Amino acid sequence: MFITFEGLDGSGKTTQLALLVAYLQEQGIPHICTREPGGTNIGDQIRACLHDVANTAMSPVTEILLYSASRAQHVAEVIRPALAEGKIVLCDRFADSTLAYQGYGRGLDLEALTYITRFATGGLRPDLTLLFDLDPQSGLHRRSSHGEEMNRMDLQADAFYRRVREGYEALVRAEPERWVVIAADRPADAIQADVRRVVADRAGVALRS
Amino acid sequence: MFITFEGLDGSGKTTQLALLVAYLQEQGIPHICTREPGGTNIGDQIRACLHDVANTAMSPVTEILLYSASRAQHVAEVIRPALAEGKIVLCDRFADSTLAYQGYGRGLDLEALTYITRFATGGLRPDLTLLFDLDPQSGLHRRSSHGEEMNRMDLQADAFYRRVREGYEALVRAEPERWVVIAADRPADAIQADVRRVVADRAGVALRS
Repeated sequence: MFITFEGLDGSGKTTQLALLVAYLQEQGIPHICTREPGGTNIGDQIRACLHDVANTAMSPVTEILLYSASRAQHVAEVIRPALAEGKIVLCDRFADSTLAYQGYGRGLDLEALTYITRFATGGLRPDLTLLFDLDPQSGLHRRSSHGEEMNRMDLQADAFYRRVREGYEALVRAEPERWVVIAADRPADAIQADVRRVVADRAGVALRS
Repeated sequence: MFITFEGLDGSGKTTQLALLVAYLQEQGIPHICTREPGGTNIGDQIRACLHDVANTAMSPVTEILLYSASRAQHVAEVIRPALAEGKIVLCDRFADSTLAYQGYGRGLDLEALTYITRFATGGLRPDLTLLFDLDPQSGLHRRSSHGEEMNRMDLQADAFYRRVREGYEALVRAEPERWVVIAADRPADAIQADVRRVVADRAGVALRS
């Protein structure tokens, strides 16, 4: 069972993931929790190259291929072996983030991104993807209600996050059976109750309180 | 004018490239001579990752994506700018090597390799590709004629290089107008005369002796 957590930054998905991990641990359910580059030596080296401040000349195509290489290694070295051992694999962002952020958000070639992502993962798809859905405006509204005006950068960021959110919505429409959309503008414990119910249901894990 | 040099190891292509460079230099024709990773900082970092002896767990998919990332950067940072300045760009091996060696030789998914290669290069194709064609058997024959017997590894290598050669032949058939096949089992000066004639003809460079 391969479960991925998706959503905008600030949607609380990483917190929810940590709460779910604590729950699975408590219940003694075999699992791993991971995120790219997944602690692989190769992934760390790729990340160092991606983050090196000397590499300002990096082309967008190089960047996509490096992220994809890191993902391929993460799948081969971490995710597939854990799945083969029968563990639940929880992953904080996966291929859908690339499509939503790079494809829909930044406007890069969606067909190419889809192809290369499928190549990198060897066709591995999550069995379940939780989308922590949040109106990107809510953060900005909160800020302007404190008396600060939105500047040009805020407006650009707002437009970007709207496109990312629309991207996620398109991905959900394309594979509705894989996704569960969870409203993220609620108290953390209410959200976690939903998360546990969905995971218990899909993974066939007994829900105990 | 973008010219690539292809062929099996030992076909003499790198020697021929050096001889052509000397000639262009002599004639004062603006050019650069390059090969992946092309001296880019990013390409060097990627190569270090590919060559790191600690990275034995690298998956074949990761490897392809890293080579492609290096190629993308080489195209963006070295080849395209030189072409934009009107220089002749000479490159020792390019995308065709990936298709011939990884695709035909190692049997990796040719369609995927083609797609990712096209993505990495942004569709940049050589205007002219010289194939230095050599029977892979000739090296092995020479060795066994010295009284050594071919071992299992030699036979495997022979089968591999035959597939690579057949791959090159298939690439030539697919785009005959781009390729010029040069018989590489001849004296270096005779081969170089052919190389200069072909380049002069295609690049519109005056041939002076």
